[in-house]
Amino acid sequence: MTVSTKAKAPPTTRLCRHTLTSLHYGGANLVDDLMGQKTFTEVLLMQILGRTPRPVDMRIADVVLIVLMEHGLTPSAIATRLVYMSAPENLQGAVAAGLMAVGSSFVGTMENCSRLLDRLQAAADPQGEALAIAREHQARKQPVPGFGHHLHKPVDPRAYKLLDLARAEPELPGDYLRALETLSRAVDTAAGKPITINATGAVAALLGEIGVPTEVMRGFAVMSRAAGLVAHVVEEQQRPSGRFIWETVEATISFDADPVALEPEQL
Amino acid sequence: MTVSTKAKAPPTTRLCRHTLTSLHYGGANLVDDLMGQKTFTEVLLMQILGRTPRPVDMRIADVVLIVLMEHGLTPSAIATRLVYMSAPENLQGAVAAGLMAVGSSFVGTMENCSRLLDRLQAAADPQGEALAIAREHQARKQPVPGFGHHLHKPVDPRAYKLLDLARAEPELPGDYLRALETLSRAVDTAAGKPITINATGAVAALLGEIGVPTEVMRGFAVMSRAAGLVAHVVEEQQRPSGRFIWETVEATISFDADPVALEPEQL
Amino acid sequence: MTVSTKAKAPPTTRLCRHTLTSLHYGGANLVDDLMGQKTFTEVLLMQILGRTPRPVDMRIADVVLIVLMEHGLTPSAIATRLVYMSAPENLQGAVAAGLMAVGSSFVGTMENCSRLLDRLQAAADPQGEALAIAREHQARKQPVPGFGHHLHKPVDPRAYKLLDLARAEPELPGDYLRALETLSRAVDTAAGKPITINATGAVAALLGEIGVPTEVMRGFAVMSRAAGLVAHVVEEQQRPSGRFIWETVEATISFDADPVALEPEQL
Amino acid sequence: MTVSTKAKAPPTTRLCRHTLTSLHYGGANLVDDLMGQKTFTEVLLMQILGRTPRPVDMRIADVVLIVLMEHGLTPSAIATRLVYMSAPENLQGAVAAGLMAVGSSFVGTMENCSRLLDRLQAAADPQGEALAIAREHQARKQPVPGFGHHLHKPVDPRAYKLLDLARAEPELPGDYLRALETLSRAVDTAAGKPITINATGAVAALLGEIGVPTEVMRGFAVMSRAAGLVAHVVEEQQRPSGRFIWETVEATISFDADPVALEPEQL
Repeated sequence: MTVSTKAKAPPTTRLCRHTLTSLHYGGANLVDDLMGQKTFTEVLLMQILGRTPRPVDMRIADVVLIVLMEHGLTPSAIATRLVYMSAPENLQGAVAAGLMAVGSSFVGTMENCSRLLDRLQAAADPQGEALAIAREHQARKQPVPGFGHHLHKPVDPRAYKLLDLARAEPELPGDYLRALETLSRAVDTAAGKPITINATGAVAALLGEIGVPTEVMRGFAVMSRAAGLVAHVVEEQQRPSGRFIWETVEATISFDADPVALEPEQL
Repeated sequence: MTVSTKAKAPPTTRLCRHTLTSLHYGGANLVDDLMGQKTFTEVLLMQILGRTPRPVDMRIADVVLIVLMEHGLTPSAIATRLVYMSAPENLQGAVAAGLMAVGSSFVGTMENCSRLLDRLQAAADPQGEALAIAREHQARKQPVPGFGHHLHKPVDPRAYKLLDLARAEPELPGDYLRALETLSRAVDTAAGKPITINATGAVAALLGEIGVPTEVMRGFAVMSRAAGLVAHVVEEQQRPSGRFIWETVEATISFDADPVALEPEQL
Repeated sequence: MTVSTKAKAPPTTRLCRHTLTSLHYGGANLVDDLMGQKTFTEVLLMQILGRTPRPVDMRIADVVLIVLMEHGLTPSAIATRLVYMSAPENLQGAVAAGLMAVGSSFVGTMENCSRLLDRLQAAADPQGEALAIAREHQARKQPVPGFGHHLHKPVDPRAYKLLDLARAEPELPGDYLRALETLSRAVDTAAGKPITINATGAVAALLGEIGVPTEVMRGFAVMSRAAGLVAHVVEEQQRPSGRFIWETVEATISFDADPVALEPEQL
Repeated sequence: MTVSTKAKAPPTTRLCRHTLTSLHYGGANLVDDLMGQKTFTEVLLMQILGRTPRPVDMRIADVVLIVLMEHGLTPSAIATRLVYMSAPENLQGAVAAGLMAVGSSFVGTMENCSRLLDRLQAAADPQGEALAIAREHQARKQPVPGFGHHLHKPVDPRAYKLLDLARAEPELPGDYLRALETLSRAVDTAAGKPITINATGAVAALLGEIGVPTEVMRGFAVMSRAAGLVAHVVEEQQRPSGRFIWETVEATISFDADPVALEPEQL
């Protein structure tokens, strides 16, 4: 059959082609060039960045993917466990449910931090720009994206290790690292005390250093958390927690029909 | 442009067509025939069943959709609230996460019950078949789908109200209701004591009575829970619970690295 | 067991409580007060708005829920059908996948339109404010949210029917309707030609009229599309399209590894 | 505050614990023991398997994760692209939507194949058992899980490369590989012609060899596809295909309201 559409030319793909007897990822033959020769990190970088990754790209990607994998019984992990308990035939749905919590409030902050780093790199006066950013957020009583952590004090140890590892890589240009340092000094100045760089802030700088565009960064959190959430499903198979969580929440949050007594300022 | 595919003839749709100046749901003009004239329940039944629903269809669908909407802080509702807290810009993702808990373990049981009701209706000796089903499940120590409820004892009040409402409808053929009664007597006999019909068992019978195929039934739970979960999002906006649930779970489930002490039989 | 948390007082819920023998939605007994007496639309409004809905609230909600249900083979419907083909045991996952396409680009525009209507109602000079909004968007070459439709020209017939139905309701205050009219005149003035109000713009005004907060509006699209997508799953069971869509897309989008030739401006 | 629940003892977790100044994955200190020292594959295996992975485990996991990452414009990839077009602010939702297509019909088949391999290993007469399995499926006109591929003929090249790589690993016990070979001979015998082992069949054998339980296997597809789908999102940012796919599908699947003419056997 034959189909006509309004579109002038169809889009194309660079990711994959297949024939009856072969499969190609970009320009590489999967069977001959990749299988048994490349790691998962290497191939995912190749597909996402559209180029052959260097060893330094893989080191940076590996440490970022490790760091974002786990933080215990987060909203993400709890959602995955509850959905898995309810539909154990559907492991992918449980992981998908948890991934949806990879949003603006948590890991999504790396994007917002990366946008600030781009702004500093484009500024004529990066120090002045950084101070303006810090004071802007202070005036709105909002944390600067990439700074502060409610569970790690005084510093987020992951952030400083990430930055140390990146600084030890001579092949990285260093522009994002320097922009983050500039921003960090401005944040401390505005606050009048040291505020920790957090893991998502450092991740933004590291991914920027290896050429990951801002709007792709969240994808690294998604891949990493997918792995972390699979581990939570496995643990849920071995040590079920879903019913316990359900009963605990039901026992704790009680019924109160009176809206006025509860949130007068919101009515 | 022109496209050729291997497919002989493309599939067609009966659900909707649109022109520059009109939109049609099936054979009905949305603006002229439906808007301001039909209810949500009426139009969703029309689209799902592919026919004009009778008043009795709407009464049955309404009561089913009401009954499945809410059961407090279920796994579904908790997942929705945690995802909403994490990504409040993405209300649809929070509802979608909760819907994925509408699975085999909870509301999905209506499908399994409906399959048993189909089996009884096809049997030469429904009583004998029902007893065989009840004893089969007893031997495997599994509840018969549609029977028993861990939160409602001795009876699930929703189930008996659903059945009363359906019995009061002279236009329904009654075959599914009778099959459920037959199965209920067999379940009681096998158990040696009364076991409650539960809401999903009664829902299976009611939806069967209005001609909803077994494999479509779960869709009614999905529509109903979507509404229930939107209400949970609204409550989360007004009385946030997500951080409390997170902290409560984190504080309750502690770290224990020793696998042997915990689940020796699973290693 | 006993759990201690850092939280001072747990949150409460107004949505539902249950005992061994009863279930309550807010202050209503499900079995005695709702089942057989209320429609789906009535109960979902009661739960979402936290008050007893008036007949006018139900008429407005019904027409909004009907209008947003269907628009043929949208990205949403295609995603649902492809996921259902891949995992037919998991109807809820297919609907959830489609719901995630209810995003910022399509129905989410009702929120943005509603925010503009709030701004006009708060303005000292609504006409001036409306013109400022229209010219702002024109300068950025962006459509004003709630205006224009790429598939319906010259007017979106749904929008004008929605507004007619709302204007015929004397109990509605009319503030959102008037704000939308003001904005519409300004949009036409700025464009130098009439630009249609679209369905999401009219929906924003109607939901505003019955007291639905802006940040809840997207929930109505979610509930409505959940029903529409269940109908697409049913049609996929009866007239499978998934494999055809897959083959058509595979046959149309070809492999082209050369990034430079394709999108020079994006590199 | 203090909470009492019905549960006797809360569950525990072995995955992660955190203090103000540290984060631990199982028994390892994230900053001191993992960051900069381990790869993504190594840490995900450690978390999922609950043990220190050997180099052979990593080689097998890497090749499996590479092989399942991509197969062009699959239902999964199309769903992700359409959802991304509709809600570009919500990258995680787009990936989650595509992951839900990792279901029973496609990659989920590795679980079903693995169950057969377990059955052969437990059988007194594996050859006889294998033939029985092959004939059973033939009689039901169903493919044996792990065999046959509609896009790769006469053989799925990925499967044989996977098996070659595994056979070259002296540390693997070989039981799953032998079971798959036994099953393959039986499938050929029953068919009277060679039927290819496919990628999911070979993946089941390889994951079995490194001790991945059957019910965890689908998790490897989920992690791998998450990476593949992130690459599709990136390509959708650079070479948008969503609107083209939408228009192509809309132009191809036309409206036909008459159910009788279309699928008489289904009514």
